[in-house]
Amino acid sequence: MVTPKHHILICTSCRINGTQKGYCFQQDSVKVLQTFLEEIDERDLSGDILINNTGCFGICEKGPIVVVYPEGIWYGNVTVDDVERIMDEHIEGGNVVEDLLI
Amino acid sequence: MVTPKHHILICTSCRINGTQKGYCFQQDSVKVLQTFLEEIDERDLSGDILINNTGCFGICEKGPIVVVYPEGIWYGNVTVDDVERIMDEHIEGGNVVEDLLI
Repeated sequence: MVTPKHHILICTSCRINGTQKGYCFQQDSVKVLQTFLEEIDERDLSGDILINNTGCFGICEKGPIVVVYPEGIWYGNVTVDDVERIMDEHIEGGNVVEDLLI
Repeated sequence: MVTPKHHILICTSCRINGTQKGYCFQQDSVKVLQTFLEEIDERDLSGDILINNTGCFGICEKGPIVVVYPEGIWYGNVTVDDVERIMDEHIEGGNVVEDLLI
């Protein structure tokens, strides 16, 4: 298995006991993930991008958290409105979205 | 936020609707994750390693799946008994565990 061109991870506060509770979840991170999925589909980029929900990264006060590998870029306080910009500037444009970095 | 020395991701089949169902979960991936946590604690490596459960990577037939970034190493069919070896050989030894690669 080769790491995809971009592997996007989004905390949806899923716990290993199967419950989904926590700051990122409360801050609409599921909707952020769904918006990424829509953008990836609309741009026909599903071959280049893998996207996953995750459990807590331990930096809840900066959530919702979005991590992009293999670049190792950490974004915080990500809203639904930021997704288009991350897709335009980072994923398609190749530039980190500086003001979302944590 | 700087990517930790090792960021370990383990599919526990957590879905964005809050349920935890799927092949990796059925194959004891939660126990694999808990074993990693125990090993990390025993070896006093929590400062170097971040570990997260995730939703489905889409390669269920090879589960349980363990991914290690920033190296971008993908392991499959990982059992509780494999965890010590991944910790010894990869995390502490710096060598990929070849026979678990997918």
